[in-house]
Amino acid sequence: MTGTTSDESGAFVEQFEIGPYATGALDGLSFSVKDNIDLAGRPTSFGSPSWRDAHPAPLYNAVCVDQLLAEGATCRGKVVADEFTYSLDGESHFYGTPRNARAPDRIPGGSSSGSAASVANGLVDFSLGTDSGGSVRVPASLCGIWGLRPSLHRISEAGVLPFMPSVSTVGVLANSLVALERPAKVLLKSTGRAVPDVSRILYLQDAFNVADKPVADAALNALERISGASGVSLEAVSFAELVGYDAPLSMCNEAALRNLQTIEFESVVGNWIEAHKPELGFVFSMAYGNVKNFDRVKQMKCLALCEKLFEDINAGLPDGTVVCFPSTPVVAPLKGSLTTLEAVQDFYNRTMTITAFSGVGRFPEISAPLLDVGGIPVGLSFAAGHYKDEFLLKAVGKLVR
Amino acid sequence: MTGTTSDESGAFVEQFEIGPYATGALDGLSFSVKDNIDLAGRPTSFGSPSWRDAHPAPLYNAVCVDQLLAEGATCRGKVVADEFTYSLDGESHFYGTPRNARAPDRIPGGSSSGSAASVANGLVDFSLGTDSGGSVRVPASLCGIWGLRPSLHRISEAGVLPFMPSVSTVGVLANSLVALERPAKVLLKSTGRAVPDVSRILYLQDAFNVADKPVADAALNALERISGASGVSLEAVSFAELVGYDAPLSMCNEAALRNLQTIEFESVVGNWIEAHKPELGFVFSMAYGNVKNFDRVKQMKCLALCEKLFEDINAGLPDGTVVCFPSTPVVAPLKGSLTTLEAVQDFYNRTMTITAFSGVGRFPEISAPLLDVGGIPVGLSFAAGHYKDEFLLKAVGKLVR
Repeated sequence: MTGTTSDESGAFVEQFEIGPYATGALDGLSFSVKDNIDLAGRPTSFGSPSWRDAHPAPLYNAVCVDQLLAEGATCRGKVVADEFTYSLDGESHFYGTPRNARAPDRIPGGSSSGSAASVANGLVDFSLGTDSGGSVRVPASLCGIWGLRPSLHRISEAGVLPFMPSVSTVGVLANSLVALERPAKVLLKSTGRAVPDVSRILYLQDAFNVADKPVADAALNALERISGASGVSLEAVSFAELVGYDAPLSMCNEAALRNLQTIEFESVVGNWIEAHKPELGFVFSMAYGNVKNFDRVKQMKCLALCEKLFEDINAGLPDGTVVCFPSTPVVAPLKGSLTTLEAVQDFYNRTMTITAFSGVGRFPEISAPLLDVGGIPVGLSFAAGHYKDEFLLKAVGKLVR
Repeated sequence: MTGTTSDESGAFVEQFEIGPYATGALDGLSFSVKDNIDLAGRPTSFGSPSWRDAHPAPLYNAVCVDQLLAEGATCRGKVVADEFTYSLDGESHFYGTPRNARAPDRIPGGSSSGSAASVANGLVDFSLGTDSGGSVRVPASLCGIWGLRPSLHRISEAGVLPFMPSVSTVGVLANSLVALERPAKVLLKSTGRAVPDVSRILYLQDAFNVADKPVADAALNALERISGASGVSLEAVSFAELVGYDAPLSMCNEAALRNLQTIEFESVVGNWIEAHKPELGFVFSMAYGNVKNFDRVKQMKCLALCEKLFEDINAGLPDGTVVCFPSTPVVAPLKGSLTTLEAVQDFYNRTMTITAFSGVGRFPEISAPLLDVGGIPVGLSFAAGHYKDEFLLKAVGKLVR
């Protein structure tokens, strides 16, 4: 691949070799593990040295790790996670900024920053990450590799540090669609049940509108090529048309998911932070200040809105349908460019306007490294209805191969 | 109700009053909270004093608690949970055996033992519990009250101690169907989307065959009455007919859920126990010995079987269908009767043969206090397909009212 050494990649917290336990569907594949997923005998940091030092090393691997080792894959090490996985930029105060292999002067995206960098720098075939607000899809998009956020809770989270139980998933980042599919089917425990063929591609106009114009143009061009080559129809759809009433895509983030994430983060991580007063990185401290000042009781109604959006979006995504959009509204920002409040808010608000769509929908999304804007990679996302993970994998295989 | 004082009930770890925060859908209702669900400023024990003393008190309530308080309900206290919620009997080494109000010489069932006792003794209208292998449904059945295990992950688990992420749910126990429905709809964030009418009652023969004959007879008599009064057809179905191939109901527990639970318990709680060596109750120590000696890698294939059973069972439960069975195969055993290995194995194996059905199916089940065997209560369960929680509540309302 790029010939980057592991040290130059900045991806790894620690390198070692575990397994495989047996031969199986993943023979010959190597993987890395994000540092909020347990590896036996090695402390899990959750992206925070204070957390790492306050918790004993786990005795068991996370279930998702053992699934891979039992099917023939080899674990090559533990990779960097953003602090408490609460970031989309991949610039860790404690563990540094893993190298964006195809755009080394730019951020890799986070919070699965080391997962993306270990794959994109050619050091492993795939990586286990986690995704709440985009933590698999954003680094996959910005580093130009494949990324899967599966349907909510389709992959076991036992031994994975809890983040936001109603939102978070384990996901996979990989250097090819085959290297994504093979571990995905093991982790999803895919049964081989027949799934329909893809019969319709929708493109979500609101997401194109929020993206930079070169990104939106590249995405639409790619979809037109894909539609032409595959013979599958391509139709524009607005978020309002999808759900059946007048509402903007931004509602998914601003009124729903963002508040739910804050509420759940308080209950899961906030309790620990308040009791232990750990050392916090500057950027996380700023974000956490917003969490602490949040009125959770007033925002309880966001839970009902999340449920309603889940039902309404999925009603618009019947069998055979995939919905497409740029995975991120921008290519990777230059390192050091997210230094003003305005820049940070623009990056997060626009990115999460797109990523919250699958978060609220609880459905699978694959970020495919199909776009190039002036030599810089960015992802094109394909999503399908809740629990239609195997359909989505098959559809992307047909459309992209 | 029974006039039992809270002290006599043995249900409470601590009594106090919290909320309500506002008026709403739950005005006038009181509830208790199982001691693995966070209440701000009060240590959560997880049923283990060692766990309680090793963890600081949470700063925030669990999300599910705040949902109830924000809708007008009043919290009356924290109630007993079995040790690490890893039991179905409700005889805690540390916190005692909450009183089974209708059969005081018998166990209340667990692990939501204090939840059931606080409701059955008339001290609250409903209680928040959790259910992995039956921890809401079993005490509801044995104490003669209502219990709901919802679809997997329909209720937020933020601030609820993790047990088995692929199996565990928050649930509700209540003294009437109305007192069950009102908090259930808040916790489920029910949207009011139209659901079909119940058109068919199936009764699951394998579950009837595993039950004591008086329990099975009482259940079938009740279903015949319900079918006659409602005009909804009643049909026998075997597990093999439901899934479409030759397999016994016991497969759900023995080959699938039981192993998944053990694997996830190791990753979630086993790590902590091994690192901290807490004081363990005798019965839990015995059960945990089996966990420690379990070969998790050899059992990884149970995850694939769980996924296959999930798909196959749900394919047999289309819209309009409820499936019924005795909630437990037995009435509550006498206190002190589960003292031999044979007695313990018979109680757990037969009970979990039934309870693992909804666990593997990830679908909602309501245990209704409709049966009486020689003056001792036992539950009749109604279940429906995955995510059909609102349909199930409506169906039970039509069939039982």
